Amino acid sequence: MLNQNTSTLITLTTDFGYKDPFVGMIKGVILKINPNAGIVDITHDVSPHNIREAALTIGMSYNFFPPKTVHIVVVDPGVGSSRRPILVITDHHYFIGPDNGVFSLIYKSQSETLGVVHITSEHYFMPQKGPTFHGRDIFAPAAAWLTRGVEITKFGDYITDHVTLPFPTVSTPTKTTIEGEVVYIDRFGNAITNIKAEDLNTLYNTNPEGKLKIVSKGKHTELKNYYSEVADKGLYSLVNSAGYLELFVYRGNAAAVFDIKIGDIVGVMLTG
Amino acid sequence: MLNQNTSTLITLTTDFGYKDPFVGMIKGVILKINPNAGIVDITHDVSPHNIREAALTIGMSYNFFPPKTVHIVVVDPGVGSSRRPILVITDHHYFIGPDNGVFSLIYKSQSETLGVVHITSEHYFMPQKGPTFHGRDIFAPAAAWLTRGVEITKFGDYITDHVTLPFPTVSTPTKTTIEGEVVYIDRFGNAITNIKAEDLNTLYNTNPEGKLKIVSKGKHTELKNYYSEVADKGLYSLVNSAGYLELFVYRGNAAAVFDIKIGDIVGVMLTG
Amino acid sequence: MLNQNTSTLITLTTDFGYKDPFVGMIKGVILKINPNAGIVDITHDVSPHNIREAALTIGMSYNFFPPKTVHIVVVDPGVGSSRRPILVITDHHYFIGPDNGVFSLIYKSQSETLGVVHITSEHYFMPQKGPTFHGRDIFAPAAAWLTRGVEITKFGDYITDHVTLPFPTVSTPTKTTIEGEVVYIDRFGNAITNIKAEDLNTLYNTNPEGKLKIVSKGKHTELKNYYSEVADKGLYSLVNSAGYLELFVYRGNAAAVFDIKIGDIVGVMLTG
Repeated sequence: MLNQNTSTLITLTTDFGYKDPFVGMIKGVILKINPNAGIVDITHDVSPHNIREAALTIGMSYNFFPPKTVHIVVVDPGVGSSRRPILVITDHHYFIGPDNGVFSLIYKSQSETLGVVHITSEHYFMPQKGPTFHGRDIFAPAAAWLTRGVEITKFGDYITDHVTLPFPTVSTPTKTTIEGEVVYIDRFGNAITNIKAEDLNTLYNTNPEGKLKIVSKGKHTELKNYYSEVADKGLYSLVNSAGYLELFVYRGNAAAVFDIKIGDIVGVMLTG
Repeated sequence: MLNQNTSTLITLTTDFGYKDPFVGMIKGVILKINPNAGIVDITHDVSPHNIREAALTIGMSYNFFPPKTVHIVVVDPGVGSSRRPILVITDHHYFIGPDNGVFSLIYKSQSETLGVVHITSEHYFMPQKGPTFHGRDIFAPAAAWLTRGVEITKFGDYITDHVTLPFPTVSTPTKTTIEGEVVYIDRFGNAITNIKAEDLNTLYNTNPEGKLKIVSKGKHTELKNYYSEVADKGLYSLVNSAGYLELFVYRGNAAAVFDIKIGDIVGVMLTG
Repeated sequence: MLNQNTSTLITLTTDFGYKDPFVGMIKGVILKINPNAGIVDITHDVSPHNIREAALTIGMSYNFFPPKTVHIVVVDPGVGSSRRPILVITDHHYFIGPDNGVFSLIYKSQSETLGVVHITSEHYFMPQKGPTFHGRDIFAPAAAWLTRGVEITKFGDYITDHVTLPFPTVSTPTKTTIEGEVVYIDRFGNAITNIKAEDLNTLYNTNPEGKLKIVSKGKHTELKNYYSEVADKGLYSLVNSAGYLELFVYRGNAAAVFDIKIGDIVGVMLTG
């Protein structure tokens, strides 16, 4: 974990939107410190103040980036208060942002060893640091200095009491059923659940002759392999590109048409 | 056509929007394979599943990029089905995406010789390739490998039966009239037609003393050179920066005010 | 001021939005001329034709970028008319865009010496320059050539009659009051005023025992240091990260809830 070296690649995930110049300021600050940094936007359209959505967004994405990428996440309603700025170090990635739970899904990832540093060295902050824009004044400069090779230990001390938000888990009320819920709805209206391909496989393995039925809001849906496998406008499900069960309408908006919302319960039944 | 060399520049045109992390994932995949790739967004806000709009978008844009740029287009409702991933090679540009017609206007460009390769070499795919996100699992890695110098012939075999979508053409019902239609409406509400400056010139040359009248929805509009040439809020037309006839309202939204829609007929008459 | 050297960094601030391919074209043109240019988007979502909003956006942002950055601003309803394309040179930054007032707040910055060049050398334009898209045909190529080291004097002659838009100023009707107004509303609904921290300090210094009261639309608000200092959903104020007085609702949208609009008067009173 502490065998440090960084790439010069920095990603950004924020709730700053695309209209205001805040993201531009962050990029300017990074490039002032490290002109060789490469910056990639993951999104700036996390719903305002939605820490949970930010946690899902970075949790789904970080692993597609090169080793040693530095991921900045700024969804930070508590900015200026006592909530700490942190640097999270895993085997293959760095994360910088507020200690408010945005990295909860990183902490839960079982494949990564973990270190969390409370960033306190004002030396690596913007000189005119204020209490309302730590994305620009603390996180961006810390990330830029990290990509220039500043040692992790220089940023502050390790902590172990970082904040983890509870995320809904999948349950198995009976041997032949799984219960999960919708955790994210994408731009196409696809409703992504927290039920993994592995969960489905475990269920299926109890009776390989059985058939999986997906139930949401009293509606039974059939499990497909890809979207265009169906032609009608009914509700169907598939295992999506992230390995999660997803409800969809072919060339339609499942969430809008079937009034699916985050938190809706989704059941899976193995029928003889 | 086959005198291969690529720049390290890759453009992206998708319907993934700006909220979900899908575009970020694509960029991560590219940079993992080629850290020196430069990535430019053309747009990620193509209307969901609108292949025709994507074809117009890339058709309008590609030529402004440096020679040997690799253009990825992902508007792909048939992902996972038998529709093929393809690499299109022209004299000056490369294109990678689904064989669903998104490259129709490239095929029609008369200034470019053309080769189309069915991408089949799984060697250049993401290892965990799934059936629902070929933008990330096939197109992005193929583009990244191409910018690293992998030979075109390594990706698969040439085909000639690629899909071309029909696009509305301009007709000349009489010697003194042209009939076209609105094909795109931009953010300012300008309504872009498929009638070219050359079409207007041909008409005009039949009687250089004549005057061009543009007619849309029963309204006559005058041809201007630039937007601020008019002061009132009427409907006017000009030849736009892409060389096409366009209907506009100065500092106003022509499509909204005059209820102009894609597919609306636009006529041009030469009057003595 | 004339001690020229440029970075290869170019920023973009436009009203072109994120759907149309216009911004992509601009980037293609820049990279064709200077493949080593780095391009950063400040925003493309300035309200269409809103010169004043563009002036505020670039005025708030430019200083966070590295010295010698070239800032392109394209909000240009008068494109094609006699309004001039200009290059603005200050001690630390370059600006390229239309002479319609978008650089008003740069001109007002007292810390920078200033030169303004009327860009006339068609040599550095796009060959097929048209009258409706100077962002692509004039500003982008001029910026790209500038980052390649073309001398300022090659672009045209210095002028002194460039356009400056009037911006609302802060007044002090009495010794114990300041009057300003809301000039920008950000995506979170925070209402940013034109009243600076220095203005507040000046007032405060007249009676350090006094208390500052912020009044907007008949409502008194208390001055806080950061957003999460309050827990309720009332209207509060703070000095924001740009050094301006700002009205906010914690984790809420002040503009929407309290119907605050650009131009609304905001008063500050020092009470014994």
